Amino acid sequence: MPTAAELVDRLTLVVPDFPEPGVLFRDLTPTLADAEALRAITDELVGAFAGGFDLVAGIEARGFLLAAAAAYAAGTGVVAVRKAGKLPPRTLIEHYELEYGSAAIEIRAEQLVPGTRVLVLDDVLATGGTVEATCALLERAGAVVAGVGVVLELAALGGRQRLGGRPVHALRGV
Amino acid sequence: MPTAAELVDRLTLVVPDFPEPGVLFRDLTPTLADAEALRAITDELVGAFAGGFDLVAGIEARGFLLAAAAAYAAGTGVVAVRKAGKLPPRTLIEHYELEYGSAAIEIRAEQLVPGTRVLVLDDVLATGGTVEATCALLERAGAVVAGVGVVLELAALGGRQRLGGRPVHALRGV
Repeated sequence: MPTAAELVDRLTLVVPDFPEPGVLFRDLTPTLADAEALRAITDELVGAFAGGFDLVAGIEARGFLLAAAAAYAAGTGVVAVRKAGKLPPRTLIEHYELEYGSAAIEIRAEQLVPGTRVLVLDDVLATGGTVEATCALLERAGAVVAGVGVVLELAALGGRQRLGGRPVHALRGV
Repeated sequence: MPTAAELVDRLTLVVPDFPEPGVLFRDLTPTLADAEALRAITDELVGAFAGGFDLVAGIEARGFLLAAAAAYAAGTGVVAVRKAGKLPPRTLIEHYELEYGSAAIEIRAEQLVPGTRVLVLDDVLATGGTVEATCALLERAGAVVAGVGVVLELAALGGRQRLGGRPVHALRGV
């Protein structure tokens, strides 16, 4: 039986110059559309932190696909970490810098009982800005970040270092 | 054990005047953040079409949360029906009208072997414009819409009629 990493290698689409010239885009949608790969990826991300989390957070939008499957598999709920403006008040908001410009994400804090151990999932760990902001936001709400799980880690971009020792599991480094 | 509909009633947040005055917004994020509700909702949506679909399609962004959990539960893959511009080329695109303005959604058609039976999931069925466009897009790609599953149906808005006899399962009418 192929491993999750082997299925990711086989199915993920590598697209040059998207969304802009010079960027090598990795499209995981064909990977998640494959039943065997969705199951293997989900099971590995859940298994890496088994017993260590009470809730799964997904980062809009692609992280939702991983987080909801993982939450179902682990028997937890799923928290949506949304782009600013999508959730009704009152929310907690975290602003952060991108390479060009800035962004903001929001959660509804009442979904997090203080001390809740949250597994944060996203598809790709690149510079780590969005994942770091997500962890900071969850911690401001009183939660504990149990770990960060991603399918692909672009190790050269240093995202893991930016996460300050929080446990990170990547299915595949590229 | 409470039913999925009872959990939806208990946990879903009803917010007046969001995102604009006069709109009664129903926020399902607290519902999906509850482990028991996520499992009950997923199992009912999958169970309503059990054995009748090969793939689950989720409509960006909130539909991703339901579709990925359902795909994992059913042992299928999940197809992301995305807002225009998010997927790398080449895509199939469907433009449709909203009450004010227009929108477009995209899929990567190679994820759909012709004849694939697809279950379409979203959180709320209101006027049905986005769901209808999703069904049309999947059918243009050669797939068969096995059914449409939603958590909430705003029946007075006529979405079900707009879907032209495609099977619809709603956990809860409001």
